[in-house]
Amino acid sequence: MEVSLDQVKKLREKTSAGILDCKKALAESGGDLDAAVEYLRKKGISKASKLVARKAGEGLVHSYIHPGGRIGVLIEVNCETDFVARTDEFKMLVNDVALQVAGNPPYAVNREDLDKDLIEKEKEVYRSQAIEAGRPEKVLDKIIEGKLEKFYEDSCLMEQPFVKDPDRKIGDLVKEFSGKVGENVVIRRFARFQLGETA
Amino acid sequence: MEVSLDQVKKLREKTSAGILDCKKALAESGGDLDAAVEYLRKKGISKASKLVARKAGEGLVHSYIHPGGRIGVLIEVNCETDFVARTDEFKMLVNDVALQVAGNPPYAVNREDLDKDLIEKEKEVYRSQAIEAGRPEKVLDKIIEGKLEKFYEDSCLMEQPFVKDPDRKIGDLVKEFSGKVGENVVIRRFARFQLGETA
Repeated sequence: MEVSLDQVKKLREKTSAGILDCKKALAESGGDLDAAVEYLRKKGISKASKLVARKAGEGLVHSYIHPGGRIGVLIEVNCETDFVARTDEFKMLVNDVALQVAGNPPYAVNREDLDKDLIEKEKEVYRSQAIEAGRPEKVLDKIIEGKLEKFYEDSCLMEQPFVKDPDRKIGDLVKEFSGKVGENVVIRRFARFQLGETA
Repeated sequence: MEVSLDQVKKLREKTSAGILDCKKALAESGGDLDAAVEYLRKKGISKASKLVARKAGEGLVHSYIHPGGRIGVLIEVNCETDFVARTDEFKMLVNDVALQVAGNPPYAVNREDLDKDLIEKEKEVYRSQAIEAGRPEKVLDKIIEGKLEKFYEDSCLMEQPFVKDPDRKIGDLVKEFSGKVGENVVIRRFARFQLGETA
């Protein structure tokens, strides 16, 4: 089977194996990258474990621990250059986002990251509540739509109103900064632990 | 159907709804707690969202950011009393664990937390490697067992040798401290972000 150069490149980055070994592994695995890694490991050619990480951007990993140590946040915000990552403005942005997550726990960074099932369940709940409240059938969709938008605003970091300036969303902050420095700026991920919370 | 008091208690903690509403919701939901929460929300009785968290222990949420902001760790370590959580010894333990996670990324806290499929895959890889190396069939199980123990030592936080004192495992540190203060001490969870890493 034909193996693309791009696949070979990816496999080499993952395993540090030679080009020919990578080509063979991909051919034997039908082009499946994970299977090819597995193949190389079985052959003893690659020592790559699943812990191997690959760099894909600049930026900062930053944390905020609320006084008392009962709430903590870890975030990663990416930009394109180390130069921007080192500026005080970027550090301030990252810190503001961490504070935001501590104070207003989101489910996800973007609404696209939300679990589809979760959204369907929310809609079902809104529908039942509206019916229970005696709202007419023809306005149900509109009510659900409105409540869903509110839900996104509560639960998606990028859509939350910024705690320090509620007229702007977190997404606006990011966009403004991105425009100012002329680089893509992306809130990559966050973790938020609250002491003793159960899933 | 019969509804246990324990279930009612749990549902009340989650939803702050009345006892009778909780009993009804549980009966209607066949005793399924999540379904009962859903039921109460649909009836408009509970406003509880999935963001509601319940306290289940004392301890500390703590972070370590490696200089340069390219690696960050967030951890939660639980103990039984706020008194112990505030001691310098506990803080030191928590900090040591955070440093450990930064330096030696684990998959999981305990070997029981590891994904079963991951372990099966590891075993398969070890078997193939051993066969490839010409090891006789009758010693394969022993070889796999040994490699698996090594894998646990690398990938499970509690089994990792402590970076500052490799003769002791992280689990030993926790046990020693627990014995000294006479409280259960548990590393609850961790998050580790490395700048730009891809899953």
